[in-house]
Amino acid sequence: MKSYLQMTAQELDLEYSSVRKEYEEIKKAGMKLDMSRGKPSKAQLDLSNELLNMPFDYMSEGVDCRNYGILDGMVECRRMFADILGVRLEQVFAGGSSSLTLMYDTIAKAYTHGMLHSEKPWAKLDKVKFLCPCPGYDRHFTISKSFGMELIPIPMTDEGPDMDMVEEYIKDADVKGIWCVPKYSNPDGIIYSDKVIDRLASMKPAAKDFILMWDNAYCVHEFDGEFVPFKNIFDECAKYGNEDMPFEFASTSKITLPGAGVACFAASEANMAYMKKLLGAQLISYDKVNQTRHVRFLKDRANVIEFMKKHAAIMKPKFDAVVNTLNERIAPLGIARWHNPKGGYFVSLYAMNGCAKRIHALCKEAGLIMTNAGATYPEGNDPNDSNLRIAPSFPTEAELKSAMDVFCICLRLAALEKLTAR
Amino acid sequence: MKSYLQMTAQELDLEYSSVRKEYEEIKKAGMKLDMSRGKPSKAQLDLSNELLNMPFDYMSEGVDCRNYGILDGMVECRRMFADILGVRLEQVFAGGSSSLTLMYDTIAKAYTHGMLHSEKPWAKLDKVKFLCPCPGYDRHFTISKSFGMELIPIPMTDEGPDMDMVEEYIKDADVKGIWCVPKYSNPDGIIYSDKVIDRLASMKPAAKDFILMWDNAYCVHEFDGEFVPFKNIFDECAKYGNEDMPFEFASTSKITLPGAGVACFAASEANMAYMKKLLGAQLISYDKVNQTRHVRFLKDRANVIEFMKKHAAIMKPKFDAVVNTLNERIAPLGIARWHNPKGGYFVSLYAMNGCAKRIHALCKEAGLIMTNAGATYPEGNDPNDSNLRIAPSFPTEAELKSAMDVFCICLRLAALEKLTAR
Repeated sequence: MKSYLQMTAQELDLEYSSVRKEYEEIKKAGMKLDMSRGKPSKAQLDLSNELLNMPFDYMSEGVDCRNYGILDGMVECRRMFADILGVRLEQVFAGGSSSLTLMYDTIAKAYTHGMLHSEKPWAKLDKVKFLCPCPGYDRHFTISKSFGMELIPIPMTDEGPDMDMVEEYIKDADVKGIWCVPKYSNPDGIIYSDKVIDRLASMKPAAKDFILMWDNAYCVHEFDGEFVPFKNIFDECAKYGNEDMPFEFASTSKITLPGAGVACFAASEANMAYMKKLLGAQLISYDKVNQTRHVRFLKDRANVIEFMKKHAAIMKPKFDAVVNTLNERIAPLGIARWHNPKGGYFVSLYAMNGCAKRIHALCKEAGLIMTNAGATYPEGNDPNDSNLRIAPSFPTEAELKSAMDVFCICLRLAALEKLTAR
Repeated sequence: MKSYLQMTAQELDLEYSSVRKEYEEIKKAGMKLDMSRGKPSKAQLDLSNELLNMPFDYMSEGVDCRNYGILDGMVECRRMFADILGVRLEQVFAGGSSSLTLMYDTIAKAYTHGMLHSEKPWAKLDKVKFLCPCPGYDRHFTISKSFGMELIPIPMTDEGPDMDMVEEYIKDADVKGIWCVPKYSNPDGIIYSDKVIDRLASMKPAAKDFILMWDNAYCVHEFDGEFVPFKNIFDECAKYGNEDMPFEFASTSKITLPGAGVACFAASEANMAYMKKLLGAQLISYDKVNQTRHVRFLKDRANVIEFMKKHAAIMKPKFDAVVNTLNERIAPLGIARWHNPKGGYFVSLYAMNGCAKRIHALCKEAGLIMTNAGATYPEGNDPNDSNLRIAPSFPTEAELKSAMDVFCICLRLAALEKLTAR
């Protein structure tokens, strides 16, 4: 195979005709597949069937988990999360079934009540800006957008957010926080380097109530190789007197059941005391039955890490299928680059500039729904129109192979359209 | 027994000495009992043991309830709530495990985003006032207080809130809503009369975004006699073009498990569309596994009403014990009056003015924790210092009898202290 970038105009025209024909045939086949979201597959959900069916004893360390009370949740559930995240029990609040909701509620409280070190609620401010490393998680940006924040894009490097830029922006007191997925970042799948973590932990933002939103969604979500230990952000921040800066979030959504697992947040003791005062008006407690059930099923950190290997056994062949297909069929053509992650839920692909939206449209026309091009950028605006997020988890391996056939053809067709100026 | 109000000074002194002695003896007995919250008893929780232990099929009307998606929840769960509340399916959003949280979030969204008919988010207003029929539910008032609202007390009558007063206050555009528990109101246990409901439904508040917070917490919670049908507030409001005014809330917390059941809210279709747009930033969906499990267990409205009779069989003897004891030992003394509810979770008692806090303190000293005196009023301030909320559900019948022994002695002692000006 010859790189498209080295082809003559005539060769490109020929290639275009041939790929166009392939595309028309593929369209006729009438695929119908949704690869737009990082949803676990049925096989993964089945790993937790026992969770749904085990005989259930409601007494737990002397507490009847079925009744009202205990704002911050069952202590054994908090202990399990504390062990997984490497933080102290006192720092953990066991929540409901969604870490996204906990993140939203944290931001909402900043608006309605202000954070611990706020001079006033953010709703009273003329302007709030938030740093959005991108490509990133669209639902983070949606939260910020929903509150009317100004979203500031920060390019991702291979080690994490561009820290030179971050350090420049935080001089502005209107900049109130940053969204981070530090381990197997969504979508690039990279792990923030120690250097980047140190620079984040040592930030001295002009805003005294700056929040480091630390969404550790993929904290134990290796699918390739052993569990990778990860720095405790609170210890790192404490070195610089910044222990009140981070709020960490995690959940079992991609360990047990998406949207029916248990989420948690972790914060400094001072933040926890402040948040508990506010949360006491919002709830009596989250679902302690589900928290208890999860502890019975997941047991502890060691068992969770072991359990994640079952997910890995299902996930790895799918990621291999994506990356191997791209390596075989696309790499030689020089029309895209991509990450090769060892954990998380996505393969992040960079097509030729100006091609992502077109690829998305071509896929859609052929029955393959990908995440919207641009969705991984604030306001849905990828300045290069290049990034596409591939979510291989939900389809079966067979479906994934068909999907990659379609995707590669669309990738080639869009590149050829650009190169032949069609 | 002679009424204290008809006793001579000497008789009162003798009675005081005797009651004081009884109180000292009771203190020595060293009771330890908490009657402060409307918590279901273990026997009630056990009614739902099957819910926690039934074999669980995750497929429901073609949907795998274990995976992400479906913002407004499982359709069969929404249908069940729609039937129970007598509203249309389109009006129901199936939530998490707490209706209190849904109420808080509704108010929070009014602050951060504004309601459908708001000119601006409430956070941008200098002042927000909220009508608080009282005695009422302390957690409602806590929500309002948490957002810095000015709480306006509205006296409760035997038919519901004093509507003359409500109609006067809503002429003020700063008055943005009212808290209502329309069926077996907390704590008085009365059902709003048709007249009051009609006047509420026909309100023309100066604030275009006035919210009728309709907390139907006890919608099927009769413990004495058959299910009492109740008006659909949306139909009533629609008669006056007010269909966007009410937000109704309910949950299975006191049907299945407190804090581990399923909550819902109902609203006009226009409000629902508006709220779903906002909620889409906060969550993907609430726990659909728990929603599905609940539908399997509770089935439908008819079955729920039947199931509630099992609760009634546990609750009625306890309420009888409270009311009968009061009738026997306190009524003749003329020192208190109380409601005799047929549903809900409380007996609301009015002691002689100025005695409630003292009674609470005396009970506490004797090891009996009652709801704080004043807790049923905004800011915890009962102007008459008279109302006490008795929550008979949690103790066993034997414990309840001991508790009532203590309570009656404290009631008498406080009255005697007042009458003898001690």
